[in-house]
Amino acid sequence: MSNKLTLGLLQLPAGRDVAENVRQALESIMQLKADNPQLQLAILPESFNGPYSIEEFDRHAEAVPDGPTCQALSKLARKLAIYIIGGSIIERDDRSKLYNTCTVWAPNGQLIGRHRKLHLFHVNIEPEQLGGVQFDEGEALTAGSEPTVVQIGTQKVGIGICHDKRFEELARLYRNMGCSMIVYPSAFCICQGPMHWELLQRARATDNQLFVVTCAPARNNMSGYVAYGHSMIVDPWARVLREAGHGRELIVETIDFDTVDEVRRQIPIYKQRRTDIYEQARANI
Amino acid sequence: MSNKLTLGLLQLPAGRDVAENVRQALESIMQLKADNPQLQLAILPESFNGPYSIEEFDRHAEAVPDGPTCQALSKLARKLAIYIIGGSIIERDDRSKLYNTCTVWAPNGQLIGRHRKLHLFHVNIEPEQLGGVQFDEGEALTAGSEPTVVQIGTQKVGIGICHDKRFEELARLYRNMGCSMIVYPSAFCICQGPMHWELLQRARATDNQLFVVTCAPARNNMSGYVAYGHSMIVDPWARVLREAGHGRELIVETIDFDTVDEVRRQIPIYKQRRTDIYEQARANI
Repeated sequence: MSNKLTLGLLQLPAGRDVAENVRQALESIMQLKADNPQLQLAILPESFNGPYSIEEFDRHAEAVPDGPTCQALSKLARKLAIYIIGGSIIERDDRSKLYNTCTVWAPNGQLIGRHRKLHLFHVNIEPEQLGGVQFDEGEALTAGSEPTVVQIGTQKVGIGICHDKRFEELARLYRNMGCSMIVYPSAFCICQGPMHWELLQRARATDNQLFVVTCAPARNNMSGYVAYGHSMIVDPWARVLREAGHGRELIVETIDFDTVDEVRRQIPIYKQRRTDIYEQARANI
Repeated sequence: MSNKLTLGLLQLPAGRDVAENVRQALESIMQLKADNPQLQLAILPESFNGPYSIEEFDRHAEAVPDGPTCQALSKLARKLAIYIIGGSIIERDDRSKLYNTCTVWAPNGQLIGRHRKLHLFHVNIEPEQLGGVQFDEGEALTAGSEPTVVQIGTQKVGIGICHDKRFEELARLYRNMGCSMIVYPSAFCICQGPMHWELLQRARATDNQLFVVTCAPARNNMSGYVAYGHSMIVDPWARVLREAGHGRELIVETIDFDTVDEVRRQIPIYKQRRTDIYEQARANI
C-alpha cells in the first residue's frame, strides 16, 4: 500500500461575510481538486469562515456538526471523495459555550474528528517586540478537554489549532499515540510569526520525527488581527518542504510517509528516551 | 541583586595529548579572565581533554572528582574565583564503568554538580544526509541516571551533554524544576549540525523560555569525528545572541536573566499548559 498522501493547503482570506467565506473555501477546494485529481486531503485555515476577533466570535458561531459550515464541508468531502481538515470555526454548543473547533471529514462525508482548541491564545507581548500583540481568547471562548487523533488513509494524524503548537507536550502525546503527522490550522500574528512560526513547526517535526503542517489565513492588513500567513509543510528531517507567502495561495504537495520511518531508523531517539528518569524526576518536583 | 551573568565559551580543539589539552584549557580560561575581569562562568566543550572516539575513551578516562583533570579545574575555579562548567570528560568509576561526565565547579573550588550524559549518542545516519554518521556511545559508555541542576549565582542551571539536547522532555523537566538556563557542552557532528544544531537549541529556549548555551570543540578535519563547532548563546525569545564559527574561538557575553521574566510574562505558556490533559492522555496510551 502506498505511503504517499497528496494534500492541499488553502491559504485564504476571511472577511466579515460568513456565507461568502464558506463559498470561497468550497470553490477553492473544488478548483484545487479539479486541477489536481490526485488530491486526497484539503486543509483550511483557522477561523476560515469569519473574522478572528473576540468581538465577532459570537456572531459567527455555529453548531457542530449541524451548522451550515459543517454541513457544507461534509457534502463537499463526499462529493469530491477527499478528506477535509476544516481549519477551524467558532462552535456554539448546546449550553451556548463557544469553542475554537476544527472538524475533520472523511471521503464519505462523515465527521471523524472534532478538535476543540486546548490552549486558548493568551499573550501580552509589548510593542518593542515587532509591534507587540495583546489577545485573550479566554474572554470569549472555552478550551477543549482532549487531544484529537484521526485516521487519514493509512496514517494517524494529530490535530492542534494555532497556539496549541506552542506546547511541545501535546506534540509529544501525539507522537506517543502513533501519529506520523500533526496538522495545525493556525493564524499566528505578524508579531509572533517572524519570531517563532517556522521554529515551532520545525521543532515539533524534529523532536517527534513526523510531518508538521500548518494552514494559515491570507494576510489582510486592514483586519483587526493581521495574520502572518506562511502556511508550511515540514518533513520529519525538519526540512521546510513548502512555504506560502502572505497572500492568498494554494499549495499542493505529495508527501511520503516512508520518510517518517527513515528518520526514526537513522536517529532512533524515540527508543532512547529515558522515561524512567523523566517519571522519577516529575514525581520529585 | 543583579540578574546579570558574564559567561565565557571556550571553543577549543582537543588532540590526543590529554595533559596538553588540559593545559590549553586552563591557559585559555586564565587568559579569558585576565582579558575580562568581569567573567563569572567559564564553559568548556564536550570531551575537551581527549579525542571523542569510542577507541580512545578508555585510554583517557579519569576518576571524578579525584582525577587530574577535575583537580585542575577545581584549583583554577578557586584561583580565579569563578564558576567552571567543565565541558565533559570520560569518567571511570570504581567499578571501571565509563561515563561521559560534566563537572561543575564553584568559585571556592567545590564540586557542585556531576552530570553523567543521560542519552548516549546513537545514530546511524545514511550517507545521503550530508555524508551521514554512525556512532554508538553505548559500545563503550554507561548512561547516567539523573538530571542535574546546579546553582550559579542567583540562577538554577540545568546541565545536559550534546545528544541530551535532542530530548525535549529533559529540557521540560529543567524548566519545571525552576531553571532559567540550560547548558549543553556538545560535540555535534558536521552531519547533524547543519540540520538540527541551531534548531534544537532555539526550540528548547522558546518552549521553556530560558537561556540555552552550547559549547562545542573547535573543528579538526583530520580527527576521526569532525565536530561542527558553532558554540552558541540563545536567549529566551529564541534569538541567537552569539554564535562561534568552526575554529578555535572564545566568546564572552553578559546575559540578563530579567529577559527570562520578561518573556514568561508576555507569553505566559507555562501557566497555560494543560497538564490535566497530558496526564490523562498519557495514562490512556
